[in-house]
Amino acid sequence: MYSFTNDYSEGAHPRILEALMETNLTQHTGYGMDEEHCGHARELIRREIGRPDASVHFLVGGTQANLTVIAAALKPWEAVICASTGHINVHETGAVEATGHKVLTLPDPDGKVTPAMVLEILDSHPDEHMVKPKMVYISNTTEIGTQYTKAELEALSHLCRQRGLYLFLDGARLGAALASSANDLTLADIAALTDVFYIGGTKNGALFGEAVVILNPQIDQDFRYMIKQRGGMLAKGWLLGIQFETLFTDGLFYEMAGHSSRLADRLRAGLEERGFSFYSRSVSNQLFPIFSDELIEKLSADFSFNIQARIDDSHQAIRLVTSWATREEAVDALLKALD
Amino acid sequence: MYSFTNDYSEGAHPRILEALMETNLTQHTGYGMDEEHCGHARELIRREIGRPDASVHFLVGGTQANLTVIAAALKPWEAVICASTGHINVHETGAVEATGHKVLTLPDPDGKVTPAMVLEILDSHPDEHMVKPKMVYISNTTEIGTQYTKAELEALSHLCRQRGLYLFLDGARLGAALASSANDLTLADIAALTDVFYIGGTKNGALFGEAVVILNPQIDQDFRYMIKQRGGMLAKGWLLGIQFETLFTDGLFYEMAGHSSRLADRLRAGLEERGFSFYSRSVSNQLFPIFSDELIEKLSADFSFNIQARIDDSHQAIRLVTSWATREEAVDALLKALD
Amino acid sequence: MYSFTNDYSEGAHPRILEALMETNLTQHTGYGMDEEHCGHARELIRREIGRPDASVHFLVGGTQANLTVIAAALKPWEAVICASTGHINVHETGAVEATGHKVLTLPDPDGKVTPAMVLEILDSHPDEHMVKPKMVYISNTTEIGTQYTKAELEALSHLCRQRGLYLFLDGARLGAALASSANDLTLADIAALTDVFYIGGTKNGALFGEAVVILNPQIDQDFRYMIKQRGGMLAKGWLLGIQFETLFTDGLFYEMAGHSSRLADRLRAGLEERGFSFYSRSVSNQLFPIFSDELIEKLSADFSFNIQARIDDSHQAIRLVTSWATREEAVDALLKALD
Amino acid sequence: MYSFTNDYSEGAHPRILEALMETNLTQHTGYGMDEEHCGHARELIRREIGRPDASVHFLVGGTQANLTVIAAALKPWEAVICASTGHINVHETGAVEATGHKVLTLPDPDGKVTPAMVLEILDSHPDEHMVKPKMVYISNTTEIGTQYTKAELEALSHLCRQRGLYLFLDGARLGAALASSANDLTLADIAALTDVFYIGGTKNGALFGEAVVILNPQIDQDFRYMIKQRGGMLAKGWLLGIQFETLFTDGLFYEMAGHSSRLADRLRAGLEERGFSFYSRSVSNQLFPIFSDELIEKLSADFSFNIQARIDDSHQAIRLVTSWATREEAVDALLKALD
Repeated sequence: MYSFTNDYSEGAHPRILEALMETNLTQHTGYGMDEEHCGHARELIRREIGRPDASVHFLVGGTQANLTVIAAALKPWEAVICASTGHINVHETGAVEATGHKVLTLPDPDGKVTPAMVLEILDSHPDEHMVKPKMVYISNTTEIGTQYTKAELEALSHLCRQRGLYLFLDGARLGAALASSANDLTLADIAALTDVFYIGGTKNGALFGEAVVILNPQIDQDFRYMIKQRGGMLAKGWLLGIQFETLFTDGLFYEMAGHSSRLADRLRAGLEERGFSFYSRSVSNQLFPIFSDELIEKLSADFSFNIQARIDDSHQAIRLVTSWATREEAVDALLKALD
Repeated sequence: MYSFTNDYSEGAHPRILEALMETNLTQHTGYGMDEEHCGHARELIRREIGRPDASVHFLVGGTQANLTVIAAALKPWEAVICASTGHINVHETGAVEATGHKVLTLPDPDGKVTPAMVLEILDSHPDEHMVKPKMVYISNTTEIGTQYTKAELEALSHLCRQRGLYLFLDGARLGAALASSANDLTLADIAALTDVFYIGGTKNGALFGEAVVILNPQIDQDFRYMIKQRGGMLAKGWLLGIQFETLFTDGLFYEMAGHSSRLADRLRAGLEERGFSFYSRSVSNQLFPIFSDELIEKLSADFSFNIQARIDDSHQAIRLVTSWATREEAVDALLKALD
Repeated sequence: MYSFTNDYSEGAHPRILEALMETNLTQHTGYGMDEEHCGHARELIRREIGRPDASVHFLVGGTQANLTVIAAALKPWEAVICASTGHINVHETGAVEATGHKVLTLPDPDGKVTPAMVLEILDSHPDEHMVKPKMVYISNTTEIGTQYTKAELEALSHLCRQRGLYLFLDGARLGAALASSANDLTLADIAALTDVFYIGGTKNGALFGEAVVILNPQIDQDFRYMIKQRGGMLAKGWLLGIQFETLFTDGLFYEMAGHSSRLADRLRAGLEERGFSFYSRSVSNQLFPIFSDELIEKLSADFSFNIQARIDDSHQAIRLVTSWATREEAVDALLKALD
Repeated sequence: MYSFTNDYSEGAHPRILEALMETNLTQHTGYGMDEEHCGHARELIRREIGRPDASVHFLVGGTQANLTVIAAALKPWEAVICASTGHINVHETGAVEATGHKVLTLPDPDGKVTPAMVLEILDSHPDEHMVKPKMVYISNTTEIGTQYTKAELEALSHLCRQRGLYLFLDGARLGAALASSANDLTLADIAALTDVFYIGGTKNGALFGEAVVILNPQIDQDFRYMIKQRGGMLAKGWLLGIQFETLFTDGLFYEMAGHSSRLADRLRAGLEERGFSFYSRSVSNQLFPIFSDELIEKLSADFSFNIQARIDDSHQAIRLVTSWATREEAVDALLKALD
């Protein structure tokens, strides 16, 4: 049984574990305040994005990062706009609403927020009888494997700045986005175009960890208070520092995402060759082929994966995810099983 | 200038003011604990709905009633289902989310929640990565003037009981619903089919006040703590008791709603005779005729009303609301102005 | 049976009811947006406090005012300092905590917050592992009938401004404070020394209503969103406007508080003459004489009042409250009953 | 420079890191749903406490565990009682209040909650104008190193059951408590006497992790929804399973706590021999000797530690913490430095 269920089914890249071993018995300052690793990792990230003024905070997971950032940025009556498929809207058990904020959505055929959607929501929220939209939340890659082009991100960013909205990019799968053959964005671009974003470690070869990068000082004010209050301040914070230090040394972050992307391309090509159609136009490491129920049952004997949606009486879209740890032979075996 | 903007543009029925005058210098127990008026009003309502076991609480306003009931009923991870046009979803500045709960919606062509919508939402919320739908919120009449038939309410109620969902009916305009010529529901039916509902005073001739009727003891547990905590416990609570006492004495509640309904029927008939079409199939005291921009501008000289939606380049739907206080001559003058 | 239980046992001053009667069938703009009454009342209050720039909002009740102001002013990790007997700490069912904020207290022998208490709390909250104190909440008069001198309020205000704390004065019983023979403060002083305060109507002869006066624009930003979200926006908002208009016309507010104060002075003098001691050094309309259990039982036959605290095995402190409506004969009868 | 600042200055016991290495490339089911490690660790803990019915959940940190348990257990108007020095009251940046609940405290000379304190709080919260106390939160060991005897815990537990209060034991330092020479409690006792408690890994040799053990099914209902909503559901949940599996294999948990305890005893004895007095009667791995400012300055050249409190003009209490990783030579060096 081989799993294509997600990109976080294995532990971490061996270099990360080695780094943890090497430093294991060294005494460190807690709570992310150590210079050796957290400080160094912050420095590496600031350099990577070309923004020495950026504030970088390390959190354990994505839902935690989302709720902490959003609750820190918004006033009680302010709301966040996202795609109806957005992670915060669907897959976080109402974590944002639990901090008191409404999530405003419009249908999104391909998982992305467009300027037109933002404008439509702004127009329908004119006064104090409704919430006040104040932030746009996007994910790159999106929940259905699509991603933003530089032009799309620029357009959104321009609108947000014009209308006084924060732009927040959930980068749980930012590695996958940057490594995709369809990508034309850099981390520096993202830093230039957003108010806050994060770089996902969990889904790209760390044991856990998301590096929240805050470019807008208004959001950064007292941000550590918010981390602590929401239970996100790791006592042994240097464990996060060490992981991001390793990810951003010798390009390991890109190397792992590149592996994942290459295997996704191989899998996509194999699926296309065999004439399968797809649920979404994914260009990244999540693929959503449409299979017959019969084929799905047969595949399930040797491979595990999630069901995304039922398409018709006899077909469903499944989700296949590659990762830094996916073995080439597993991809080949899966394709072979389709013949 | 005559206003058709809403059904709460005037004070209260003179009998209510008289009752307030008569009792003004009498000392009362506060916080809704007086037997003379709050106790009596509770008794009148219990008799009206045929439910001696019902718990009745008097609150000042509708948003307050909605947020207090929903926050009392739901656990932190539970969500409430409503129509996308639902008052709690659009017009309460995120009051429900501010108590920590997600509002789940689906598009609703005529302002109502259907069993099919509820089932679709239940099916898409299978596990702990998503919120748990636990309550269905409906309004009667709805935001766009439509209303539930007895068969529709029975079907929803049946589904809710089968699936363990609370059914909550916002009755801010329940008078209008009960007095509509299309209505086949009684207060007793509503009490039998829901877990909690309220009877709106503000929009039917009281100065203010909503009588929350709780049929399900689980929701009633410690409910007064919740009222107090959310700022809804009126110090001089007997002011609410006196108003509901008056409303449910000699049928004043129905009399006022009946007046409003008759004038709405007269207005609707006049609009139909003149060939105007409508934005919604309203059968109650809110009408949404579609007028040309030109006509709207002309009308605005003598009448005030709200714009509901733009229909095309040269037409908009407006909202005309009748009330217990609407003058017959004003309706006639409006119709005449259309000629 | 005559009640000294509180200062909100009767309805409203007849002039308020008359004003409601006169305007009852006039159509008004809702939600506090009418110029005729809300606008006029705002103007009267601004003139009274000598601050044309003040923002004035009318809310129905005190808990609602407290939670709305505090939740509007504070960021999620910020806390409010108050006396341990403070209304928000004890008698609001955790309303402030329900908005997410910690209430920080220190013991207070006479119901007041002192600069020393504020400094002690600031000193013990140095970093992000603790909440950040950001507001000082005081009541005038306090819960135990004491009140702030001008010098005391100036000292607190000075410290708050020096340390970047908001100063919020709960004036549910501000009338009582201003009318007390011990008072040396004016409304204008209070406006000059605080960031936000409110003028209580409920406990000084209105049916209901608190006028929140915001001097600091940071707290006022989008404040109407907050009112609406917390269920505090009265549909027929002009009812509040009319009441405050009447209160601040021809000095009715002061006249009623003056009556209450004179009867409290008469009662205090009578108690002192008879040699009773007191639980607190109240100088206002709440008196806390210490009576034997036997005397309390005897008095209870003809008078109602609250028990404040047990003093020893055979004595308790009770609370006697006078109001705008208290009858002189009732005070005399009570004193006579003590002989 | 050697740090006695806390018991989480190093990584993890080598056996934990080895276990992580061995399983690193194995694919696992996420979110704590894997049988291999999380399932096994749950089984080991259930056996250890003799409660096959216990529900065990693994969370990353203590503040997260506290806020998740408390918010899951309490209704909005319910409050939690704790010592005024309690971690949730002081050191979690208002995390409990941020979930909407008041923390009720009374002064506690030795960091513990007593039945008398609970009774006093219950007595002063009689009705809906105040919060409803519903849970007692204690820590073992406490924040100042003291711990509960079996008799004390039984008395608290008895009172809680009699009065319908949940008893929640924060065991961030439960290892230290169980290993203390003053201890007469077992994990089985604690499971028998509380409704919910947790076993701290972070402060006893894990990289991170707290095992929340829920004995009362009311608190366990839908608990995973709450974990997810509050950002506490670790994607690679087996990392927690592996750590607790290792801790509860061959007694490693007790072995590490025992080491820490022995070195604390040695340090305490050395301090007592040298005639130093203490800020608290700690019997565990946190010691609070009172030193002169001069001595503190001198020690700071070679050792790091926290300041607990100023005692007088020339003395302060410092906190010295031993851990599973503390080196015997470091203790000796510290003692020597005192001579």
